[in-house]
Amino acid sequence: MLLVTQSDPVIQQQLSRGLADVAERFARELESDLPCVNDLVRHIESYRGKMLRPTLVLATALALRPRQEQTSPAHHVLATVVEMIHMATLVHDDILDEADLRRRGATVNALHGNEAAVMLGDYLISHAYHLCSSANLPGAKAITAATNAVCEGELLQLANRENWQLDEATYFEIIGRKTASLCGVCCSQAAVLLGENSRVTKALDNFGRKLGIAFQIIDDVLDLTGDETTVGKTLGRDLDKGKLTLPVIRALADVKVADRARLLEALSKADAATMRRLVRRSGEVDSARRTAGQLIAEAKGELIAVVGGSPARALLLDMADAVLQREY
Amino acid sequence: MLLVTQSDPVIQQQLSRGLADVAERFARELESDLPCVNDLVRHIESYRGKMLRPTLVLATALALRPRQEQTSPAHHVLATVVEMIHMATLVHDDILDEADLRRRGATVNALHGNEAAVMLGDYLISHAYHLCSSANLPGAKAITAATNAVCEGELLQLANRENWQLDEATYFEIIGRKTASLCGVCCSQAAVLLGENSRVTKALDNFGRKLGIAFQIIDDVLDLTGDETTVGKTLGRDLDKGKLTLPVIRALADVKVADRARLLEALSKADAATMRRLVRRSGEVDSARRTAGQLIAEAKGELIAVVGGSPARALLLDMADAVLQREY
Repeated sequence: MLLVTQSDPVIQQQLSRGLADVAERFARELESDLPCVNDLVRHIESYRGKMLRPTLVLATALALRPRQEQTSPAHHVLATVVEMIHMATLVHDDILDEADLRRRGATVNALHGNEAAVMLGDYLISHAYHLCSSANLPGAKAITAATNAVCEGELLQLANRENWQLDEATYFEIIGRKTASLCGVCCSQAAVLLGENSRVTKALDNFGRKLGIAFQIIDDVLDLTGDETTVGKTLGRDLDKGKLTLPVIRALADVKVADRARLLEALSKADAATMRRLVRRSGEVDSARRTAGQLIAEAKGELIAVVGGSPARALLLDMADAVLQREY
Repeated sequence: MLLVTQSDPVIQQQLSRGLADVAERFARELESDLPCVNDLVRHIESYRGKMLRPTLVLATALALRPRQEQTSPAHHVLATVVEMIHMATLVHDDILDEADLRRRGATVNALHGNEAAVMLGDYLISHAYHLCSSANLPGAKAITAATNAVCEGELLQLANRENWQLDEATYFEIIGRKTASLCGVCCSQAAVLLGENSRVTKALDNFGRKLGIAFQIIDDVLDLTGDETTVGKTLGRDLDKGKLTLPVIRALADVKVADRARLLEALSKADAATMRRLVRRSGEVDSARRTAGQLIAEAKGELIAVVGGSPARALLLDMADAVLQREY
């Protein structure tokens, strides 16, 4: 779970209870009469990480109704749906492209090949929407609009693979759709379920989106500066996939002519060590961190403008700060 | 479009008008502000074949309300949704597995690699559900239950790849989920939209399912006996993917001991010519065709039991017969 250790113990307990129910619903909804399906589902349950999105749903609900003792079943359904969608994107992101396969040689999909990964992701998506409709979740339209945007962001990113001229505006367009839209929906739909007005839901959507964008920027930074054992995943994957990240885009725009040529060469050769050295020297890692910091400040402003002070709000503010401090 | 040339010209015209509207809705719903997304969508519009599923929706509606001059917008939405889902499965079925890649060597995905195919399929699925929820389609729960089943069928099939002991019951379990469930939903939900009772919707679900299973069996048969230029796609793909089809399963169960050993060897070596020769000699191609014929007879019985005579019903019966006669 995302750094919530400093927060109020009562809130922490409410959150833990809610998240445990979400995990249970997740498993129950995905259970099949086919053992081969259950085996695959169990495998992906180990992917579960910080549960950032369900936490955003539940903490937003607690912040909006600080006197309620527990989060509602409807919020647990919403949290389960967004977690299923997020898991599906993780599974589908693992699909190997032919190009990757060639470049990476013996990489073997941890599951049972690409086709199983595709179908398992589809199974998750289908169950997410099935849960939406069987629980009559009022946010189905907003959630599917967000998933439309997620797919567009992914496709825009693929279209810009190995585009070393990618500009900052397109970069933000990509992560705005790919990462921010689902985080926005977590917070805004948590409010919609409580009957909040559009001023509140809009501000919470902005809170979630800005937090999501900052989260992605820090992900980019960690891919460049992180330590593999701490981050817990292979670094340099962005480069390997021909994805330009914010520090690299800025380094390409800013560095001296000689460095720029060397950086372009390192990128086209997928020479991670040289690329990392040049980008770090450019100072743009810090500038990307500053941008993330600015977004977090704005996100917090959006939240404070519409939600009164409470331990749950403090937890959301802590979560926002934690995005900047995380090392994994 | 599926062989409807013998049918009533008025019905044909109603159907053509309806299908044209479905094609328009399909394109409109998928339109993005991103040119890279629109390029990919245009590419898959060329995949559109017989429009079997939208035709089932519209023809069922016309058969249930023979005096209505045209199919309703709600039916067009339903037809668009099922066509999007079907297209998504086609796109995702094209994802290459590493095994295939190795076996087939230089096969290059006709799109822009596996990852684009995954995301494009996801884009189609997401838009299908978005259209469901924005149009408030009452069948969202049934449709997503069907897509859950489709994914299970695909996963069960993958789990039985190169399982040369696959039995007939499991084979029918696979295609019942993978192919039949969506065809069932087309007919039953067309009836639900008209307020029909559960006896009618259940019978129509059976009609669609049985037709879907028969369709799949004939697909299997054509993969063994068809002529590549007529069928219009690479044959022997089932063998290449380690998928046992009905005639092969029966041939393995029936053929004399010597033939069985030779057939197993041909299967494990993916020796299509020998496999096709042995299976054809076993007589099980004809037996599979008979099973499909029996299913079509049952399907027609289900339809006749709940829907009165009309040109639209005659067209549905013709469609059912056409499944057996098709050579592509």
